[in-house]
Amino acid sequence: MADVIDLRSDTVTRPTPGMRRAMAEAEVGDDVYGEDPTIRALEERVAGLFGHEAGLFVPSGTMGNQIGLRLVCEPGQEVLCDSEAHIVTYEMGAAAVLFGISTRTVVSDGGRLDVAQLVDQVRPHGNWHLTATAAVAVENTHNRGGGLVQPLDQLQALWDWSRQAGVNVHLDGARIWNAHVASGVDLVTYGRLADTASVCLSKGLGAPVGSVLVASADRIAAARLWRKRLGGGMRQAGVLAAAGLYALDHHLDRLAEDHEHAQLLAKRLGLDPATVETNLVRLGGVPAPAVAEAAKARGVLVSQTDARRLRLVTNLGVDREGVDRAADVLAELLDR
Amino acid sequence: MADVIDLRSDTVTRPTPGMRRAMAEAEVGDDVYGEDPTIRALEERVAGLFGHEAGLFVPSGTMGNQIGLRLVCEPGQEVLCDSEAHIVTYEMGAAAVLFGISTRTVVSDGGRLDVAQLVDQVRPHGNWHLTATAAVAVENTHNRGGGLVQPLDQLQALWDWSRQAGVNVHLDGARIWNAHVASGVDLVTYGRLADTASVCLSKGLGAPVGSVLVASADRIAAARLWRKRLGGGMRQAGVLAAAGLYALDHHLDRLAEDHEHAQLLAKRLGLDPATVETNLVRLGGVPAPAVAEAAKARGVLVSQTDARRLRLVTNLGVDREGVDRAADVLAELLDR
Amino acid sequence: MADVIDLRSDTVTRPTPGMRRAMAEAEVGDDVYGEDPTIRALEERVAGLFGHEAGLFVPSGTMGNQIGLRLVCEPGQEVLCDSEAHIVTYEMGAAAVLFGISTRTVVSDGGRLDVAQLVDQVRPHGNWHLTATAAVAVENTHNRGGGLVQPLDQLQALWDWSRQAGVNVHLDGARIWNAHVASGVDLVTYGRLADTASVCLSKGLGAPVGSVLVASADRIAAARLWRKRLGGGMRQAGVLAAAGLYALDHHLDRLAEDHEHAQLLAKRLGLDPATVETNLVRLGGVPAPAVAEAAKARGVLVSQTDARRLRLVTNLGVDREGVDRAADVLAELLDR
Amino acid sequence: MADVIDLRSDTVTRPTPGMRRAMAEAEVGDDVYGEDPTIRALEERVAGLFGHEAGLFVPSGTMGNQIGLRLVCEPGQEVLCDSEAHIVTYEMGAAAVLFGISTRTVVSDGGRLDVAQLVDQVRPHGNWHLTATAAVAVENTHNRGGGLVQPLDQLQALWDWSRQAGVNVHLDGARIWNAHVASGVDLVTYGRLADTASVCLSKGLGAPVGSVLVASADRIAAARLWRKRLGGGMRQAGVLAAAGLYALDHHLDRLAEDHEHAQLLAKRLGLDPATVETNLVRLGGVPAPAVAEAAKARGVLVSQTDARRLRLVTNLGVDREGVDRAADVLAELLDR
Repeated sequence: MADVIDLRSDTVTRPTPGMRRAMAEAEVGDDVYGEDPTIRALEERVAGLFGHEAGLFVPSGTMGNQIGLRLVCEPGQEVLCDSEAHIVTYEMGAAAVLFGISTRTVVSDGGRLDVAQLVDQVRPHGNWHLTATAAVAVENTHNRGGGLVQPLDQLQALWDWSRQAGVNVHLDGARIWNAHVASGVDLVTYGRLADTASVCLSKGLGAPVGSVLVASADRIAAARLWRKRLGGGMRQAGVLAAAGLYALDHHLDRLAEDHEHAQLLAKRLGLDPATVETNLVRLGGVPAPAVAEAAKARGVLVSQTDARRLRLVTNLGVDREGVDRAADVLAELLDR
Repeated sequence: MADVIDLRSDTVTRPTPGMRRAMAEAEVGDDVYGEDPTIRALEERVAGLFGHEAGLFVPSGTMGNQIGLRLVCEPGQEVLCDSEAHIVTYEMGAAAVLFGISTRTVVSDGGRLDVAQLVDQVRPHGNWHLTATAAVAVENTHNRGGGLVQPLDQLQALWDWSRQAGVNVHLDGARIWNAHVASGVDLVTYGRLADTASVCLSKGLGAPVGSVLVASADRIAAARLWRKRLGGGMRQAGVLAAAGLYALDHHLDRLAEDHEHAQLLAKRLGLDPATVETNLVRLGGVPAPAVAEAAKARGVLVSQTDARRLRLVTNLGVDREGVDRAADVLAELLDR
Repeated sequence: MADVIDLRSDTVTRPTPGMRRAMAEAEVGDDVYGEDPTIRALEERVAGLFGHEAGLFVPSGTMGNQIGLRLVCEPGQEVLCDSEAHIVTYEMGAAAVLFGISTRTVVSDGGRLDVAQLVDQVRPHGNWHLTATAAVAVENTHNRGGGLVQPLDQLQALWDWSRQAGVNVHLDGARIWNAHVASGVDLVTYGRLADTASVCLSKGLGAPVGSVLVASADRIAAARLWRKRLGGGMRQAGVLAAAGLYALDHHLDRLAEDHEHAQLLAKRLGLDPATVETNLVRLGGVPAPAVAEAAKARGVLVSQTDARRLRLVTNLGVDREGVDRAADVLAELLDR
Repeated sequence: MADVIDLRSDTVTRPTPGMRRAMAEAEVGDDVYGEDPTIRALEERVAGLFGHEAGLFVPSGTMGNQIGLRLVCEPGQEVLCDSEAHIVTYEMGAAAVLFGISTRTVVSDGGRLDVAQLVDQVRPHGNWHLTATAAVAVENTHNRGGGLVQPLDQLQALWDWSRQAGVNVHLDGARIWNAHVASGVDLVTYGRLADTASVCLSKGLGAPVGSVLVASADRIAAARLWRKRLGGGMRQAGVLAAAGLYALDHHLDRLAEDHEHAQLLAKRLGLDPATVETNLVRLGGVPAPAVAEAAKARGVLVSQTDARRLRLVTNLGVDREGVDRAADVLAELLDR
């Protein structure tokens, strides 16, 4: 597969030699007993980056999001989110089936939740008919929205309102690193506008496995129990945490490169570059299966969002040369 | 309360003397053992009315709907419905918390689900990311839609598509009787366009307690187990079924009267009568709490949908004279 | 069925003429709105009898027990009970499937839970491996234990220990009335030794439908939400509550008669009368299906607990003459 | 911690240099897409060892067990197991809270489930009262039973009966490797006596993370969806699988050494060596906290099962010299 240019997702990256070395040398212990020093270091570091008291390493972004939702919403209550949110689309109904939490959606512009929309949707606790609204979930950047960055003023307005409305905020920060690099907004600023946040190490950052959930110390203590219950308690997981720490040291700033690559692709494919804010490029109005197939035959992998849409995701595993080649292949196939 | 005119809901009706007599004389047995003859008669009758093989008496519309959803959707899967559906608004997150079923909504016009909207929303089974769509739930008439009748051609199109798409259809028929009387469409026609249907005896029909879930014999056998698990297995419930049978005999046709009364209210309150299709009248753009309070002081009870909206529901307990009096009171309060 | 003597269960009783009259004349309202005066009267009366702040009418003993468990145990925690408890045997796994509550059992003598056994079983909260023990459930009288009355000193010891151990106590009081009449212990005494208690109106008391859950006012407020979610919210349920009130007035003291009848049966069938404490008679070591079949052919209905055991339950619907006849039939069939 | 002798559990082992090398060199891909070659190799190899069609790598033994239970038991049904089983003691009520599955226990001798006991406990499907029994779970070796090996004839009898009784069998094979090495019974023989089996790589085998669930191809396809839903879908997990493959190559046969070490400890501490079948040594009747504390101060870590019991687990990280030293320390502390 050496020559394949894989733009399907930023989850496909393989650990670099340096990252592998860090993993091989990691100091480890039994993390179920809380004794893995590398896990602890990662949890503390990520919690600190987002200005939260504590962090918890989990095997996937799905587990991070789902435990996060459970911390801010009781069984029988509901979480509001965008109609295209990852938690309702790609997490297989986990909130309902694992925790008895309802998700309810509003239609927003590229996942940018507007307080004005939410105000009318919040339903009170203790009513004998209504499903009580306990939390709002925000996704930043927004995957199905095309990698769009949630504007800071909108997030701030949401947060301010949530404090009044008695509603919690969960941040699905799978690609918060991209938002941070693209917008220049500090991670701690994003972190402070959420009660719980799940951030992913295995997307743009390029670690092989894992996310970190951050929240208050009390909530993380509860989260630790839920992680065990879900089967997410791992033993000498420090080998994975070492990759995460390495990624924070070496792969965070370079996300700017992925964003430039996405701009390049957008331009070469005749898209409005302003619609591409981070590392996701959406290509609509094309015969998706045929193009994906033909591109694959020529060594370029892209993903099909639906019958008429493709998604390209620039990532650590694709360098400038690869981007150029992918652009050539796709431009030719699409006659652009 | 003799003189109070209660237009809050059609659930508030009290059993009439004739209905009470039927209840007092009901032949009963232990229905958990399947030995209550009146329950059986009601279940068979209602199943027959809708062209289904079997029926199950349940203590509430919520239980009828929720078991119905469980019959057509497995834990971890999702049900699509209108964003204002009773099952997502007024059933307290039951689908998620009891059964692990996700509900996902589309914004439709007065609850009238359009196949074109649904096509893009259905997600396949067996995918490692997506929440599989197992069913669509239709509400007819639609409560928060203002008692609107689902057009038959739209229901038929939905049904035809569902057979192709491998998606089940559940009918929340709490007020299907009103739809039938208003549209003239046979109950059996409505019944045949759904895999499962829950129909309510304690709304317009005026029975004190209960709904009937209808479906295939296999599904109702499974439903019986779920009813017991939910705590809905009742013993000599024939006293309640007798009220239901009486209601079918005496209160079905008279729903036309409720619909006329709703038209009267609409006219007197300056609303477009075409927007009132059955027994629900919505009054928007008013200071709801103040009007409701003032009306109550004058013996007229209405319900507040939100801060600016009132809902009036004509019912068995309010005769022509009561409707006139309510119209007088409200017209005066609203200066219409 | 006029001549059939039905000893299968005390759930099979049909309402008496007086009870039917009370039902027919009941003042009712919409109980989902909290407006049914007869329901309220029943709830207050039963709460008072057991010395609890509040009560909630539910359609079945299963719902009463299950909501009771939910009030004293969070999802992911466990309830300890006897290995033959109704809640683990006859309630279809409801605690797990509806609420995510684990039930764990100890083997006790006739359902008489001994504190000494429980001490070692309780597992702490907050441990990263153990399933936390939140509550103990007691059943009095104990159905599968043969209607045995839980000794007061044992209940008191359990209660005292529970306060120290930080464990809640739920009472499955489906037949607490029989315990009260047989032991002479006040209902309020039983009530004070439990955090939540579900008591049944449709067994020995002879009402057609319903149980009442009693607890603190806060817990009953939460229970009301769970009842709605489970589909147990009924409208003009006062017709059922009227039967319950009538039963408390007329059928409580007469349980002594059922107990005498059970003694008679025990003697006539050669059993040790000391093993029969209330209205349940267990007949072991017999070819159960054959005897039940033969008895049925002669107008006597009994229930089979398993292949070698029959259960006879004296009840309101079987008078002294019926008991004698049943004894004759069974004695002859068993050659005793 | 270099000099510490850690006998708390066999989960505490750290990867050896060889294992780390294997991890560092592992070929990886995105396993959520099914593209990680090392994961696939491990899944196929383990499935083959147990004679099952397919395998699934999961992050923990808890996830392996819980998904295994879900494959053989529907929500609302129950699984029978020993009263000291890991799945009811150490998995935090997961079966109930995640899947709505009830666990019910029988008291057995050291976790050795006897068919005769189970026959009377199995409850049928489709009954309107009873919780249907869908499966039996066996644990081999049995953790709280003291690492006892389930006798093959008993397993065979259980399996034969299960086929007649229509009950599935799940094997909690966290330490099946120890059972295999101690008894000489082939892994495939154990595998064929179970519908689903979860086997652990991070206990005696010494891999840092992970278990493999084996079953039929259909069941594993369903398991893959559940793993994603639970948040157990990991990306480039091949680094972990490489450790598992290495462990199978290098650490399976050496479990005999751990067993010898356990024998040594037993002898030195005056226990009957016949009660120690594998790598777990239980030391009862001692002031557990005090002894554990004192041993720790002298560099020997042991675990407390309760106030009067200690558990020592020999493992990869403790060589003969360490065992001797631990024996010296404990013998002195216990004056044996």
